[in-house]
Amino acid sequence: MPIVRIEDSRPRSRAERQAVIKCIFDGLKSVFGVSDEELQARYQVLDPDGFFPPGVGAVNYMQLEIAVFAGRKAETKKKLYEFLAQNLSALLGVAPESILILLVEHPMENWGMRGGRLGSEIDFGYCVNV
Amino acid sequence: MPIVRIEDSRPRSRAERQAVIKCIFDGLKSVFGVSDEELQARYQVLDPDGFFPPGVGAVNYMQLEIAVFAGRKAETKKKLYEFLAQNLSALLGVAPESILILLVEHPMENWGMRGGRLGSEIDFGYCVNV
Amino acid sequence: MPIVRIEDSRPRSRAERQAVIKCIFDGLKSVFGVSDEELQARYQVLDPDGFFPPGVGAVNYMQLEIAVFAGRKAETKKKLYEFLAQNLSALLGVAPESILILLVEHPMENWGMRGGRLGSEIDFGYCVNV
Repeated sequence: MPIVRIEDSRPRSRAERQAVIKCIFDGLKSVFGVSDEELQARYQVLDPDGFFPPGVGAVNYMQLEIAVFAGRKAETKKKLYEFLAQNLSALLGVAPESILILLVEHPMENWGMRGGRLGSEIDFGYCVNV
Repeated sequence: MPIVRIEDSRPRSRAERQAVIKCIFDGLKSVFGVSDEELQARYQVLDPDGFFPPGVGAVNYMQLEIAVFAGRKAETKKKLYEFLAQNLSALLGVAPESILILLVEHPMENWGMRGGRLGSEIDFGYCVNV
Repeated sequence: MPIVRIEDSRPRSRAERQAVIKCIFDGLKSVFGVSDEELQARYQVLDPDGFFPPGVGAVNYMQLEIAVFAGRKAETKKKLYEFLAQNLSALLGVAPESILILLVEHPMENWGMRGGRLGSEIDFGYCVNV
């Protein structure tokens, strides 16, 4: 049940946003094994007046916060980061270094789903300890 | 010190939003034992242009992120999820399955409160390991 | 790599917002030892229509969520909270009690940075277990 929150320093067209989200969802499906039905996203353009960017003169900045069930191994997380940095930088024509990914892990029992059940009681058809 | 963040796929009147928040606060008070003074909330209507919902054609979707002191048992969390799924679905006339609850647990020492004190130094009048 | 999210119950001028952020960055540099290049922030004025404040009649409220690498000791966190409560309350002329700080800790391997590397593979020039 990944929830993806994208913060982008510049506006994009609907088609561009959809391409970004498709890329992220592809990464989560291929590396984390989640299904299409679980995926959802928010795309937010950062308000220039309220955004104080990292470094000096960052003209392009994209941040992905991805809330997931806790449990994946570091090597699996690294595969996801590499997939996203490479494919998003190619898609958007920006440096891979301008993309920050933050994986926000929550224990399965912290997800209340499907009418009030614990995430840990539900079989999602994949393992999280990979 | 729960901080409740509500994301709703559709606009609601002030009265409806207040009823939703009252329901959530009632659940947190009765199941988690917190007091009125600690409770606070943000109610946000999801921007249709930036929201990519889970599943296909989700017309109603409500997400609750509730930041709390870490420590409750799974069975206590489940009681909260059941309370919220049942009561919010009845209140809003939506399927319980369209409500996602995410409990965001932070250790008590990660809360800086009451003039710079650690949350773990303060007696709130209830236990979190229930 | 702290990411600072400020929620303020009232509007501020650009100069005031910059002073608030400078104060927070100063605290993170002096207490946590991070560098200027890593720091970034979002400043958001709470929408009065969607904000349900804690307590009764809270006229001033400021919340800081600071996402950091996990690992600091409680006494180090307390130093940061004291620095921020004291200095921000003096700067803004508000009670220290009206400022809530939430430290959001993520393991270093949950940060994908510098072209898809794990945060845990990078030398940042300081220790987090202080």
